[in-house]
Amino acid sequence: MKTIRGGVCAAQGFKANGIRCGIRKNHTDKDLALVVSDVPCTAAAVYTRNLVKGAPIAVTKENIADGKAQAIIVNSGNANTCNADGPEIAREMCRLTAEVLGLDAKDIVIGSTGVIGQPLDITPIKNHMAELAAGLRRDGNEDAVEAIMTTDTRKKEAAVEFELDGVTCRIGGMAKGSGMIHPNMATTLIFITTDAAVSAEMLQKALSADVQTSFNMLSVDGDTSTNDTLAILANGLAGNAEINTEGEAYNIFMQALHAVTTDLCRKMAADGEGATKMLECRVSNAPDENAAKTVAKSVICSSLLKAAMFGADANWGRVLCAIGYAGVPLDVDKIEVSFESAKGKILVCENGAGVAFSEEKAKEILLENEIYILIDLHQGSAGATAWGCDLTYDYVKINGDYRT
Amino acid sequence: MKTIRGGVCAAQGFKANGIRCGIRKNHTDKDLALVVSDVPCTAAAVYTRNLVKGAPIAVTKENIADGKAQAIIVNSGNANTCNADGPEIAREMCRLTAEVLGLDAKDIVIGSTGVIGQPLDITPIKNHMAELAAGLRRDGNEDAVEAIMTTDTRKKEAAVEFELDGVTCRIGGMAKGSGMIHPNMATTLIFITTDAAVSAEMLQKALSADVQTSFNMLSVDGDTSTNDTLAILANGLAGNAEINTEGEAYNIFMQALHAVTTDLCRKMAADGEGATKMLECRVSNAPDENAAKTVAKSVICSSLLKAAMFGADANWGRVLCAIGYAGVPLDVDKIEVSFESAKGKILVCENGAGVAFSEEKAKEILLENEIYILIDLHQGSAGATAWGCDLTYDYVKINGDYRT
Repeated sequence: MKTIRGGVCAAQGFKANGIRCGIRKNHTDKDLALVVSDVPCTAAAVYTRNLVKGAPIAVTKENIADGKAQAIIVNSGNANTCNADGPEIAREMCRLTAEVLGLDAKDIVIGSTGVIGQPLDITPIKNHMAELAAGLRRDGNEDAVEAIMTTDTRKKEAAVEFELDGVTCRIGGMAKGSGMIHPNMATTLIFITTDAAVSAEMLQKALSADVQTSFNMLSVDGDTSTNDTLAILANGLAGNAEINTEGEAYNIFMQALHAVTTDLCRKMAADGEGATKMLECRVSNAPDENAAKTVAKSVICSSLLKAAMFGADANWGRVLCAIGYAGVPLDVDKIEVSFESAKGKILVCENGAGVAFSEEKAKEILLENEIYILIDLHQGSAGATAWGCDLTYDYVKINGDYRT
Repeated sequence: MKTIRGGVCAAQGFKANGIRCGIRKNHTDKDLALVVSDVPCTAAAVYTRNLVKGAPIAVTKENIADGKAQAIIVNSGNANTCNADGPEIAREMCRLTAEVLGLDAKDIVIGSTGVIGQPLDITPIKNHMAELAAGLRRDGNEDAVEAIMTTDTRKKEAAVEFELDGVTCRIGGMAKGSGMIHPNMATTLIFITTDAAVSAEMLQKALSADVQTSFNMLSVDGDTSTNDTLAILANGLAGNAEINTEGEAYNIFMQALHAVTTDLCRKMAADGEGATKMLECRVSNAPDENAAKTVAKSVICSSLLKAAMFGADANWGRVLCAIGYAGVPLDVDKIEVSFESAKGKILVCENGAGVAFSEEKAKEILLENEIYILIDLHQGSAGATAWGCDLTYDYVKINGDYRT
């Protein structure tokens, strides 16, 4: 397996484009993205567990109920959520997309992101659909990912190439963050494409399994969005024998998928709203995997620890505190904590109590922009990794006045 | 029942004092508080549910296991938590306190607040114990509350006077916040005194019941501290017939206790770390009380909503979002949301969807420093109230470099 470029266009037979149609007045950013496969695809998705769901989620669910799709339409600037006419608008977006592409409206995956509770005017989308489709191309992935950004500051793409039965396959994706991100679902908008042939059933199985250790282990601010969608399309153009059962080929596909999803996780964490640092919490030697995951998420979600990391302050007591309220029965007296970055590694707590360490060295380590919080529970053999970011002035600034 | 002054000294027979003994170098704040009753008291307490517990919690538990206590010693500047010698130091603090007061070390309630994982040097406490005790006086409550402050910016006290069997009783308390405050226990350090006669058993019953709708409904930042303690001493000097069973007198006492605890909740929320606004979320017409409480807490804990309130932005979609991920099965389409303050009230969402409202009026309402978020679920008759605060630049600043 090797890392390649191309995001959602890395796989054969996918084209993309992103343009500005004008959903938000007084903004100049691109706000409408389209990804299309040359041929029909199997499709699968996972969605937010928030009870309040964006209209696009209901419509995507309907559309891929048959395990098939061929295109993805996404707008930013408006979540189309908590609007009385939401489903109607979402279906109209699909109809317009299908019309311009000569497809069936039921083969469209749809996503929306932005402010909640403001009616989404279909007019700018309708007026620019022809332009959007006309610009579809094999290297349109960067325009597409740009068009789904909201408070994101960086385009988040990932892709890998891998072998299945001697055939080269590709899988790639794009994601948008960067606030309202919290474990418990496919977080925010993530679209993945592959030219591997995978049955809809196995595609869903792979996606549902993968999120447990990828996007469900990511938190920016503890808020679970109403519109989170992770969708995958597989067009089979690589020519491998279709994966329709568990086995070696499925496992290889899962590894490639996981490489793409965890790469996107790290990129989303690093670009969390206002973030200056990516935090990765690795828990080892836990009694079981669930305990390891719960502890890792609790630590990565602690506002106090996140603020300390912003200040490059080795306040490890906040790590212990977050472990303590995670809700997992543990022997606190066995816990060991270290901080690590490109500048080295420092042990700060052993047997549940502080050890003498150089504050100077700790500061040097924590001033880096990728920080690893290493927790050895010393009471089992299970492990887990969670991703997050620091809590900064800019998070507050971005969210203090988001709608204007 | 009427509100009175005096905090922990409002009840007859209680004296207090607070001084600086020098626990933190380079600081000039008071850091050691003492509250003493003239006569033995019944005592009760509730503690953090964090698995990582400060040494003072274990020692207080031991000391009031017999339902009796007579004095409270508290230091700020160091939490005496995650230190190998923690319990030893906490017991020595109790011994020194008992010695200077001529009491038994087993009659001392102890609390510590501050940084976790730095050894607490007993020397400054030992050296200043005589001075602390010599300064005990009936109006020493303000010095005491000042000495338990950490990042608090205001002294938080409350007291009421009420009648029991024609006898005037008083109950008062002091509290310190202001970060690491999250529902699920007696939050942070709160000490309450009363001259009502209440058996230890009923005192514990009253306290445990009260926290369910007072401190457990308070959140500043979602972090559950390791040292949270809420303790109450009742010295019986008011002369009422001892409350040793449920009934009218118990109910009256509960009302007075609740008036004090919810007053302290509001003050702690208003003085949350970096807060510019107190947020009170009132949920009505919920299917049951648990649902109402869960929804109210979810809303008050949303970082996104907290940041929006800081910016006086009527982003009600974030209220809906937080209701949606609360984990309570609800019919979202019935939800109604309004914002209220001293400047008026504005309806922003009805039947789960936005309604047209004046952004100008909403801004005027949200610029106030006490904001009420009113959620009518329209699917039952239960209610709940939760308290919190906005998320500000200063929260990040305070917690970005807390230890120096």
